[in-house]
Amino acid sequence: MNERQIIDHIAALSAQGDGRLIKGIGDDCAVVAKDGRLVWLLTMDTIIEGVHFDLAFHPPEKLGRKLVSVNVSDIGAMGGQPVFALLSLGMPKTFESFWFKAFAKGLADGCREYGCLLIGGDTVASPQGFNCTLTVIGEAVAEQVIFRSGARPGDMVWVSGSLGLAAAGLELLKRKLDRAGGDFGPLVAKHLDPIARVGLGRCLGESGLAHAMMDLSDGLATDLSHLCKQSGVGARIAAWELPISPALIEAARLTGADPEQWAVCGGEDYELLFTAPAEAHGRLLELGRQCGLTLTPIGTVTEGEGVVLRRRRADGTCEEQGIAYQGYDHFRRCPAGKPGRMQP
Amino acid sequence: MNERQIIDHIAALSAQGDGRLIKGIGDDCAVVAKDGRLVWLLTMDTIIEGVHFDLAFHPPEKLGRKLVSVNVSDIGAMGGQPVFALLSLGMPKTFESFWFKAFAKGLADGCREYGCLLIGGDTVASPQGFNCTLTVIGEAVAEQVIFRSGARPGDMVWVSGSLGLAAAGLELLKRKLDRAGGDFGPLVAKHLDPIARVGLGRCLGESGLAHAMMDLSDGLATDLSHLCKQSGVGARIAAWELPISPALIEAARLTGADPEQWAVCGGEDYELLFTAPAEAHGRLLELGRQCGLTLTPIGTVTEGEGVVLRRRRADGTCEEQGIAYQGYDHFRRCPAGKPGRMQP
Repeated sequence: MNERQIIDHIAALSAQGDGRLIKGIGDDCAVVAKDGRLVWLLTMDTIIEGVHFDLAFHPPEKLGRKLVSVNVSDIGAMGGQPVFALLSLGMPKTFESFWFKAFAKGLADGCREYGCLLIGGDTVASPQGFNCTLTVIGEAVAEQVIFRSGARPGDMVWVSGSLGLAAAGLELLKRKLDRAGGDFGPLVAKHLDPIARVGLGRCLGESGLAHAMMDLSDGLATDLSHLCKQSGVGARIAAWELPISPALIEAARLTGADPEQWAVCGGEDYELLFTAPAEAHGRLLELGRQCGLTLTPIGTVTEGEGVVLRRRRADGTCEEQGIAYQGYDHFRRCPAGKPGRMQP
Repeated sequence: MNERQIIDHIAALSAQGDGRLIKGIGDDCAVVAKDGRLVWLLTMDTIIEGVHFDLAFHPPEKLGRKLVSVNVSDIGAMGGQPVFALLSLGMPKTFESFWFKAFAKGLADGCREYGCLLIGGDTVASPQGFNCTLTVIGEAVAEQVIFRSGARPGDMVWVSGSLGLAAAGLELLKRKLDRAGGDFGPLVAKHLDPIARVGLGRCLGESGLAHAMMDLSDGLATDLSHLCKQSGVGARIAAWELPISPALIEAARLTGADPEQWAVCGGEDYELLFTAPAEAHGRLLELGRQCGLTLTPIGTVTEGEGVVLRRRRADGTCEEQGIAYQGYDHFRRCPAGKPGRMQP
């Protein structure tokens, strides 16, 4: 069984009608009714030593904050505000107290920065390495929640920030090249200590401009495929519109990687991916400026299904390649990336 | 640092005033306001292969249901009703699909039996063994929630069911003696597939009779110490009142164990421990009958602090021993038990 089959199996076993549940397995968060006006958003993410982080180069304080950020990112991706968190912390019996204290400080700082309160959890002795699970509960105005399922043909596809930075930063760290270039700081920081786009997510929720939204955790190719599948649409992305930074190109040159591949396949950027009608273009650019983030239209939502990447040939014509999930050879070289969420 | 210090450290870093939070770290669940009348109860528990369960004798279907039961038990221990659950499932890449399907069936059955809905989570590849975290959200009428902190001197201390069964069952399983006696079924079942006392917890909440309550997950000695510390009181337990079943005595005889030690120190019984004023005695016995469970008064709440076990000597006099946490030699032989919750 692959991961998709695991999740489908669990989702099928769990399917029940329940009036209190607005959205179950299949989006960034589960959504349940709180009162007439507000909903609660619930999400849960686990990070495991050796799978999601390498203690050789991941400072514990940054790891603690990252655990908060990756969870809070799911709340932001539906337009919500994080409110509460629960932590399950598994540590080897031989853990060092300075390590734990730095981790706990990062976690507490992260909670404070995003405005959520750690209210409980569990602590266990883990025979092999660290593993931590965080559950975050967020709040949103019911009518402002943005689901993955609302994309419509003709929408423009947008992303916040710059793509592929986390994948590049991780590669630089692995090769001990993180100090080899003057501009690699943001790449490395993106892997070690990403920032969840909660403010932007809320602004988009309040604006009513976005039809569908999710965060970029498993890479554009995979995440856009999820969004399209949930919406019953396809998408066509223009490679030349992808926000690729000069530092990413420099890092790719240094490591022999392909910057486009990082931008399309690289996971853990925790930027927002959303769709909006074409007429919202100007207001979205302005909204991005207000939030201090660059928003970039990178393609369009299409009828049908599948996610296609368009590239310009030297002769001015275009070639197209399907990039849904891991559908073609080029991207089969993609790192397997972090294990995904419960999303069909 | 020991577990208590870990939790205290996290709790101190997380302490903030927040009007929406009714109770944070330090009880069976966190309690937050839902609307004017209802509160939400939130709890989270992790089980790790080799720490909490042994795949050599733990059937996956029972393990899935146990994961639900141990979480739901915390909801019941505050008088609530489980509503939603989120699962984080870590499995080795080499997992067998029949194993996973049986585990998922047990989990889904458990959710259905307790009336809660699995609404999301996370699935990850775990390099070493299985580990699963469940977050359960419950609901309760605000004024019916029973905290650990309400015990008063003069209260009687009560437990539901029979004590020490899970510890005995685990020992029998480890020694392959689980089929050696005709009455060992309930002992073994208590370890493999315990039943959370949700119905009893709700009845106690509705009755208004109990002053303080929690579930027995780490054993009577430790759990009663937590309850007393939270309430600022002490307790005196009568060894001769402990509900010890004939099967427990038989299992102890067979394995060379001490049935009293199992009853006092054995973890994972998931029975309810509560205190109530002496005048509620008759109504509590009746309430237990209505719920199909034996409720037993085993001691009294005292001024001061400390948890004391009284034993009768052959000459009719009594001896007393402090059993708070792991405070004396006899109980230092107690199995370290399952790692505890976030409770001071």
